[in-house]
Amino acid sequence: MESGNMRILLQFPEGLKRYALDYAAKLEADGNEVFISASPCYGACDLCLDEARHIRADKIIHYGHYPFIKKVLDIEVEYVPFYIDISPAVIEKLLSFVKDKGFRSISLNATVQHMHQFKDIVKRLEELQVKVVYKEGHLAAEPGHLLGCEDGSHFQEGVDAIITIADGLFHATAISKVPSVPVYVFNPYDGKATLINDIIKKRLRKRRAALAAAIEAETIAILVSTKPGQFSLSFALNTKKKLASFGKKTVLLVANELSPESVGNFQGIDVFINTACPRLADDHDRFGKPVLGMDLVGELFEQLSAMAPK
Amino acid sequence: MESGNMRILLQFPEGLKRYALDYAAKLEADGNEVFISASPCYGACDLCLDEARHIRADKIIHYGHYPFIKKVLDIEVEYVPFYIDISPAVIEKLLSFVKDKGFRSISLNATVQHMHQFKDIVKRLEELQVKVVYKEGHLAAEPGHLLGCEDGSHFQEGVDAIITIADGLFHATAISKVPSVPVYVFNPYDGKATLINDIIKKRLRKRRAALAAAIEAETIAILVSTKPGQFSLSFALNTKKKLASFGKKTVLLVANELSPESVGNFQGIDVFINTACPRLADDHDRFGKPVLGMDLVGELFEQLSAMAPK
Repeated sequence: MESGNMRILLQFPEGLKRYALDYAAKLEADGNEVFISASPCYGACDLCLDEARHIRADKIIHYGHYPFIKKVLDIEVEYVPFYIDISPAVIEKLLSFVKDKGFRSISLNATVQHMHQFKDIVKRLEELQVKVVYKEGHLAAEPGHLLGCEDGSHFQEGVDAIITIADGLFHATAISKVPSVPVYVFNPYDGKATLINDIIKKRLRKRRAALAAAIEAETIAILVSTKPGQFSLSFALNTKKKLASFGKKTVLLVANELSPESVGNFQGIDVFINTACPRLADDHDRFGKPVLGMDLVGELFEQLSAMAPK
Repeated sequence: MESGNMRILLQFPEGLKRYALDYAAKLEADGNEVFISASPCYGACDLCLDEARHIRADKIIHYGHYPFIKKVLDIEVEYVPFYIDISPAVIEKLLSFVKDKGFRSISLNATVQHMHQFKDIVKRLEELQVKVVYKEGHLAAEPGHLLGCEDGSHFQEGVDAIITIADGLFHATAISKVPSVPVYVFNPYDGKATLINDIIKKRLRKRRAALAAAIEAETIAILVSTKPGQFSLSFALNTKKKLASFGKKTVLLVANELSPESVGNFQGIDVFINTACPRLADDHDRFGKPVLGMDLVGELFEQLSAMAPK
C-alpha cells in the first residue's frame, strides 16, 4: 500500500490486533519504518494522534473503520476498512428470517465490517418483495452504516421491523428511544436473530436513573476525554459553569482513556457527567456510580431550573 | 498555593487520588480553573503532558513525587511532595529492630513520602552508635531517596544490612543484583521488617529467563512508552535495527500505557523488549510472555554475536 520511506503508525481496533504484525511486516518490506499503536482502540473517533506526535510519524493508517474525523489534522490519516464476508448460507438465513416473520418492509443497517455486502443483501431482500429502507446516520459514512455511537434517529419507523447486522448487541443498543416496531440484531456468523427491544428499554431506564441521581447529587464529576473524536472541552466547561450556578460542586476529570479503574480512586463523587464516548454511560455498573450522558444534560438543567427558588 | 486565573491540571498517583477533589476545590477557590488528570499515574516520570496540551493548561501540579523530568518542558510543572508521618512508636520499632539485630552499620533509604523524617531517623540511629550511610541514586532527588526504578547501585555494601523504609516491597525489589548483606523493607505503618533477598533473587532469575527466551525468540516486540520520563525512541529504533541484523523479526509497539490487556491482543510475539518503565519487566506474568529489560539488551546482543556464524 505504501512504498517509500515513511514512518507509519498503524492502529487496529482490539478485534483486528491479531493481524497487526502481518500488516506491519508488509509495509516494512515496502521500505517504511513501522510502529503499531498498543493502546486500546474503540472506534474511528479514537485516533492515536498523541502517539503519532511523540514518534513524529508521517502518517497514521487506521484499520477497521470508515473515515470519521473531519476536522483538519496535523498528520495524514488513512482509514482502511476491514471487511468480513457473511457466508451465502447465513445470507439465506437472513432472507428466511424476514420471510418467515412475514415482514413486508424493514429498516436495515449493518456495522462497518459488513458494508461491502450491504447493497447485495438489500437487492436480495427486494427480490423477495420486501421494502428495505436505510438512511444515513449523522455520524455514519454512508446509508445503512451503523456506528456504536449512533442514536438510531435515522432508523426508519413505519416499517415492520428494524434489523441490524452486527456481531454482538453493542452497536444496535445505542438507540436513544425504543422504537414501536421490533428491533433485531442479526448475527453475521451464526445467522441467529435476537430481539433487543427489552434490552434497549432497560438501558434507557438506567440512563433516566442517572438523571434522577444527578438532580440529587452534591458533587458531580465531568468526564473529558482527549481522544480526538470525543474531545468536548467547551461543553464540559459550560456544563461545569451551569452546574455551579445551581449550587452543585463540580470537578473536571480529563484523560485519554476514562477507565472505571483510574476514576474509581477519586473520592467524594456522587455522579459522573460524560462528555466523551456516549457509550461510557452504559458502563454505569463498572463505574460504580451513575453516569449521565451528554444527551440528558439539557434535561438536567431544565429540571434543576424548575426546582430552583424563583 | 496559586492565586490568579490559571488553568491548572492536577495529577495524583493512585494512592493520593482520594484527596484530589479537596485540592481542586482549594485551587478553584483561589480563582483558578482546575482539571484533574483521570489517567493512572505511576511515578514522577509519568507526567500528564498530553492531557495538559489538549486542554491548553497553563500549568501542571504533580503531587506525591520529587521533581524528576529535567529536560525543558513546554509547560510549567510544579512537583509537590506529599509526606506521610511515621509515628514515634514505629520509629522506636525501627531503632529496636536495628539494635536487636546487632547491626553496627546500615545502608538506609526511604520512599519519597517519608523523606521529611529521614534525617531525624538517621540522627536517632547515630545516637545508638549505628553508622548510617545513604547515597544518592542516579534518578533520586536527594541522598537516601529511593525510587521504584532505581537499580540499587547506590546501596552501600560493606555494611551489616540494607534497610528501606517503604510501604510495600515494590521499591526495594528494583535492585539489580542481590547484595551480600541482608536487605530489609521496614513498613512505616506497622513497623514490621521483611527480609527480601530471596524475592530479589527470584525476580532476577525471571529476568535471566527472559534473556534466554529472547535469544531463542523468532519475533520480538519492542515496547515504547510515550510517558515523558520513559520515552526511549532512539534506543528502541537502534535495538530493532540490531535485532534485525541477527535475523530476528521485530515490531515496535507504542502506547502511553503499555497494559498487558491491549498488548495481549497482538499475535505472533514471542518476547517483549521493554524500553519504558523498567518495572514492566516484573509484570512478566501479567504480560503472558517474557519481558526483557533494557539493562539486559547489551548482554542479549553479546550472546547473539557469540552465536552468529563467523
